[in-house]
Amino acid sequence: MHDHHRIRALLDARRPGHTLPQPFYTDPDLYRFDLDAVFARSWIAVGFECEVAEPGSYLAARIGASPIVITRARDGALRGFHNACRHRGAQLCAEGAGRRSLLVCPYHQWSYGLDGRLVRAARMGENFDPAEHGLVPVRVEAVAGTLYACLAEDAPDFAPFRREVEPLLAPLALQDAKVAHVDTLVERGNWKLVMENARECYHCDAKHPELSFTFPTGARGNFESEGDPARIAFDDRMAARGLPVGPVDGDWYQAARFALNDGCASMTEDGRACVARPLAALTEGDVGSLRWALEPHSFAHAVGDFAFLFSAMPTGPRETVVTSKWLVHRDAVEGVDYDLGTLTALWTATNLQDRDLVENNQRGVDGAGYRPGPYSPEGEALCARFTDWYCRKARDYLDAVAPARRLEAAE
Amino acid sequence: MHDHHRIRALLDARRPGHTLPQPFYTDPDLYRFDLDAVFARSWIAVGFECEVAEPGSYLAARIGASPIVITRARDGALRGFHNACRHRGAQLCAEGAGRRSLLVCPYHQWSYGLDGRLVRAARMGENFDPAEHGLVPVRVEAVAGTLYACLAEDAPDFAPFRREVEPLLAPLALQDAKVAHVDTLVERGNWKLVMENARECYHCDAKHPELSFTFPTGARGNFESEGDPARIAFDDRMAARGLPVGPVDGDWYQAARFALNDGCASMTEDGRACVARPLAALTEGDVGSLRWALEPHSFAHAVGDFAFLFSAMPTGPRETVVTSKWLVHRDAVEGVDYDLGTLTALWTATNLQDRDLVENNQRGVDGAGYRPGPYSPEGEALCARFTDWYCRKARDYLDAVAPARRLEAAE
Amino acid sequence: MHDHHRIRALLDARRPGHTLPQPFYTDPDLYRFDLDAVFARSWIAVGFECEVAEPGSYLAARIGASPIVITRARDGALRGFHNACRHRGAQLCAEGAGRRSLLVCPYHQWSYGLDGRLVRAARMGENFDPAEHGLVPVRVEAVAGTLYACLAEDAPDFAPFRREVEPLLAPLALQDAKVAHVDTLVERGNWKLVMENARECYHCDAKHPELSFTFPTGARGNFESEGDPARIAFDDRMAARGLPVGPVDGDWYQAARFALNDGCASMTEDGRACVARPLAALTEGDVGSLRWALEPHSFAHAVGDFAFLFSAMPTGPRETVVTSKWLVHRDAVEGVDYDLGTLTALWTATNLQDRDLVENNQRGVDGAGYRPGPYSPEGEALCARFTDWYCRKARDYLDAVAPARRLEAAE
Repeated sequence: MHDHHRIRALLDARRPGHTLPQPFYTDPDLYRFDLDAVFARSWIAVGFECEVAEPGSYLAARIGASPIVITRARDGALRGFHNACRHRGAQLCAEGAGRRSLLVCPYHQWSYGLDGRLVRAARMGENFDPAEHGLVPVRVEAVAGTLYACLAEDAPDFAPFRREVEPLLAPLALQDAKVAHVDTLVERGNWKLVMENARECYHCDAKHPELSFTFPTGARGNFESEGDPARIAFDDRMAARGLPVGPVDGDWYQAARFALNDGCASMTEDGRACVARPLAALTEGDVGSLRWALEPHSFAHAVGDFAFLFSAMPTGPRETVVTSKWLVHRDAVEGVDYDLGTLTALWTATNLQDRDLVENNQRGVDGAGYRPGPYSPEGEALCARFTDWYCRKARDYLDAVAPARRLEAAE
Repeated sequence: MHDHHRIRALLDARRPGHTLPQPFYTDPDLYRFDLDAVFARSWIAVGFECEVAEPGSYLAARIGASPIVITRARDGALRGFHNACRHRGAQLCAEGAGRRSLLVCPYHQWSYGLDGRLVRAARMGENFDPAEHGLVPVRVEAVAGTLYACLAEDAPDFAPFRREVEPLLAPLALQDAKVAHVDTLVERGNWKLVMENARECYHCDAKHPELSFTFPTGARGNFESEGDPARIAFDDRMAARGLPVGPVDGDWYQAARFALNDGCASMTEDGRACVARPLAALTEGDVGSLRWALEPHSFAHAVGDFAFLFSAMPTGPRETVVTSKWLVHRDAVEGVDYDLGTLTALWTATNLQDRDLVENNQRGVDGAGYRPGPYSPEGEALCARFTDWYCRKARDYLDAVAPARRLEAAE
Repeated sequence: MHDHHRIRALLDARRPGHTLPQPFYTDPDLYRFDLDAVFARSWIAVGFECEVAEPGSYLAARIGASPIVITRARDGALRGFHNACRHRGAQLCAEGAGRRSLLVCPYHQWSYGLDGRLVRAARMGENFDPAEHGLVPVRVEAVAGTLYACLAEDAPDFAPFRREVEPLLAPLALQDAKVAHVDTLVERGNWKLVMENARECYHCDAKHPELSFTFPTGARGNFESEGDPARIAFDDRMAARGLPVGPVDGDWYQAARFALNDGCASMTEDGRACVARPLAALTEGDVGSLRWALEPHSFAHAVGDFAFLFSAMPTGPRETVVTSKWLVHRDAVEGVDYDLGTLTALWTATNLQDRDLVENNQRGVDGAGYRPGPYSPEGEALCARFTDWYCRKARDYLDAVAPARRLEAAE
């Protein structure tokens, strides 16, 4: 029940290449609009296939306020469902990964197969049809060991993402990885401020000493080489190893393999690999980093020895929860092959630094003196890309979905 | 200033025998509607006569956001008032029971008799008429030692409740009881989820081991006997002792005396009485339990040796405060006649278990995958009764009160 | 986007000489209205010149949700700006006072002169014009060592305040003072309840034992003498010393010098001066107290040895942050010339007592039993003045500003 007229007017008032008008970062109604128009209608990176590898395993996560669960049934198929019982709506599985033969509701023990069918519901009387009370499905896709979900029935076309990104992801062999660590961080800022922060490195030299040591902070956009000899040499080396470098550039995704700073082989505080086992044979030694990112909410980096996923979820107009996951080869042993502190130090420090930047950004954006400002054409091209995408997504919703709902309501 | 058109549409969309459409459990506007349409217009169980037994005593409580105070004046009469000074609106008495000769406002010492009349207000000038500034009255009723209040001038008819429930309550002699313990619990869930939880024992066997030991979790609705021989034997035993068993079944209340599980004489962890003195001579030994419950917010159980009152108050769209009171005979001495931990263990454990269930229920109901689900005809008949009552109450308000207010505003 | 029709109706329903209708103290929409109509359009006491004495110093504060910064540039001029970078809106300076040659944004290091001009912004491309991206100015005024800011371009006329209040403030020589202590207190009450509390001493005798020892709690309005011989004697003594006593009484300000209670020379727990150095030669010994106060949010007292400023800022419909500052002569040495605990004891105790009164007031005002009540004509004249001023200010906004904005939007 958003005020569509007002949101359209705000979108009209927005100036491309600039930050958004104030209400997009502060208004409770726009927060709810974002959940409906953006988060419920986009492909969301929810994790990794290795989290639901075995038949009988599940991974419970959240898209906005919606708990979902991804299951691997005995038939080996991957399925997604709203993580809510069809009886009284209780959440079936606590967030995180686990194994179960049935998904049993903790409230009244309604029990669902991992294929979503209701198989047991006590005392429901003769007129009750279990077939009408299966779990509500959610779209799920797996690509080379990574997992995506979308709440909308008319989800964006997933085929181009698979076609373009799978060749880049495949050499990582992420299906053979394991989650070494998960961290969550509450940031008191609008999710768009979190993502604008995550889409540029214009602030990195000054604010991220750890990250800047290994990451080429002066890189432009999607790591375009633009005739740089070092970059061409890197591309040649990768080609020689059979590692595609991209870049690929879709409507709601991007990916590219790029060279780390000279002498760096991993995204760690000292630039050295920190896991004795590489993710895959193909990623042994210095392979730069493969970055892949999805609008609206995530980015990931895979260096030779580990992968890192950053995912932001709005929990209020001025609150966002960031979930980080670190993956290593499944046979790497903590304390033997890697030290968890060393593995996580760089991104943990970077996340905390970014949290402070985002919260300070929110304080300024909240004031009457805020004016939408210009992005650096060179340093913040991906921010401009993000806000363009966001505004397009918002208009699509207002044009297509919202009028349709009005018609339904009028019938 | 609720959006009545939208609330009507949601009520129309609701399917009887099913949980309510999502906004009833999540929407801030519906939370405020519930305070006006339901809590301000229902009889609320606020406590017990023994809390305001002596002339000069008072009991301060809260109905929704409204502090109220019930007084026993020197004339012995029981009166209810809004617990807000007529000067600047400060709360007069802190919540809880106490004794005072005058209700003196802690702000500027305006002083009221226990009959609500303003008897002192310093420096108010010549044109000030104390008679125009007495406390705003609230309706109060006492029934066999129990206390009820209603904020609305056109309160629901109380006579049927008194007529039907008083004979069941009278043998408890609650006017001779004392409050042994009060506990409050904040539950991060909508009050309707709290009450649906409190209106069924479909979840008891799995989730309440302590309660299930004594309570007949398979009982239907208002403990209808349906020809069960054990039940008939219990009814006969009660009749022999002169204890009526009901059931009574009003629009907004229910009461019945029922048998506890075999071998149990009280609602305690081991099923044994835990207070050396029974509530009354008539309740000595195994008398089952008398349950009485009021829509929208309470239930109570009285076994032979103690009574327990559960009262839920909404404090936000997703927050409810539950107040529990335990009563024993006024001459029972803590540490001698009863151990407080033993007395309170069963309901404290049950409340905490229910809190977790409610909060998990809210998490699922918040998601886009929530669909209203069917109640068990046998195990959740009182939930269906509760939501039917709620929807009727909401429509009554929209039909009668809301249009009248619009007329006033237009004058 | 306030509901102007409804706010007008509430203003029409308001009865002069009485507290306001309930929504003015509780409604989220009215909280936002107050920020726009009142706090963004009034002169706000933000501190003291001594906090930005040296060229190259700044003072960062907040008006409602808007961070501002006041600077003293090398040219000695005092300027005010919205404390938000013109790039992405980040807050430039953390709240508080400091020194800097440039205001460097902590996010991307855009750098501004203390005159607000953008002097450095890396990687912004050829089409970027720094001159278009200077800090957004805010009006600032300094009067005899005190500082004021207003967010609105069409700020209320400041000249009468300067003309009338400067002669009273000048003898304090506050430009030679220093801030000895700053304290902030969160009060869970609407800012209008905080200010009504701060505008009357009807409650002082009963609730403020420390304050009542020195402060003439029976004083009326703006300390009118009304022929009181003691007052006339005090005025004569002040005249003999060349200290004007006022009173002055503007639309949004008041000031007067008045006598403390017999035998008291300062506002301390024992009534004795607590700083070995007076604020100025002219204020040595017993000079009573100079009180000055601004609608909507502040009052201040200066006794001979220190000055105290109380400033309230709304942070939610039911939350206000109170900032207190204590000033002493800049050469007074803590631990030698004064003890900080002794200096701050009286107002700290008074603030905490008032916090409790305000929160209890809010609890009562939140209830359905709240009715606007009459102010004491004698003891609460300044409350009536405050609510009159507030309602006038609210109507001015609805009449002038709101229709103009509508026209702009329609163009």
